[in-house]
Amino acid sequence: MDINTVNALTYEEFLEIFGNVVEKCPIIPAAIWAHRPFKSFSDIEAQISEFIDSLPESGKEGILRCHPDLSLPAVNLTRDSVDEQRAAGLVSMSSGERALLLDLCARYRQRFGFPFVICARANSTETIGRALRDRVNGERAQERDRGIEEVKKICSLRMRQILQPTAEHSTNKL
Amino acid sequence: MDINTVNALTYEEFLEIFGNVVEKCPIIPAAIWAHRPFKSFSDIEAQISEFIDSLPESGKEGILRCHPDLSLPAVNLTRDSVDEQRAAGLVSMSSGERALLLDLCARYRQRFGFPFVICARANSTETIGRALRDRVNGERAQERDRGIEEVKKICSLRMRQILQPTAEHSTNKL
Repeated sequence: MDINTVNALTYEEFLEIFGNVVEKCPIIPAAIWAHRPFKSFSDIEAQISEFIDSLPESGKEGILRCHPDLSLPAVNLTRDSVDEQRAAGLVSMSSGERALLLDLCARYRQRFGFPFVICARANSTETIGRALRDRVNGERAQERDRGIEEVKKICSLRMRQILQPTAEHSTNKL
Repeated sequence: MDINTVNALTYEEFLEIFGNVVEKCPIIPAAIWAHRPFKSFSDIEAQISEFIDSLPESGKEGILRCHPDLSLPAVNLTRDSVDEQRAAGLVSMSSGERALLLDLCARYRQRFGFPFVICARANSTETIGRALRDRVNGERAQERDRGIEEVKKICSLRMRQILQPTAEHSTNKL
């Protein structure tokens, strides 16, 4: 898909394709829709990033809370989240590793009031575990910012999947 | 359900129940989650209203764009929307009435870049038609504000359904 195709989409088609580039937040692509025609995929990403930055702190925390906990046998996981958690090896962890991660995730959520968010596709179970152990002792405002940076990375990779679907993605669509 | 029950909900339960009080915008109840314990249902509504008001104009338009067009045989309608459109008689319109409403909705969306939003439960096909004919000639900023006021009315009625489900609502859940 190229940017001319994107700019020719109806609003409904645009939302169908880009509605989940930020997890369970169709309001975000819906908000930037008015900025068409987009110059490029980077332009869309920049608009999304700018919109997120324009939200009050509670809105940023709201975005984080729309994300699932890692490693939980969570209900209501989006297809995107399942694929990402699988890519990081979170689906194939041993039960011991899973218990440890679950405990850290629960402590993180307890401490900050929002879930630990990390770009799973850019990490492995090892780097995720390390980040969790580090970030669980952080400060709330800093963690909100870190979480939002991860949201933007996730968004960027989801955009790349739309731009150029990989074999993995195509298979998942079957 | 009373407010003590709401305050005792886990975050996941809260989102499950309140996630769609603003159409397809779980970010909103997720954002106000941090304000627990809530004093009352009115307090939750006030927090939601305040959060919406704190959004940039693009975010308010994003909320409007998360709503379906009226009277369309739309795909991806939420259960809430179907019930509301039925309550206003939109489901049982004649094909002539429907065509007229569809045309006005399309003109409205074309003019403002967001859909016509109205609290269907507080209206009939006649009052909706009248409002559309009036509002389709309005100004964008005013229509954004009017749409958001309707979003808040819809939210308020959905909250009331949660507080005290009617027979209709219970039936729909079967």
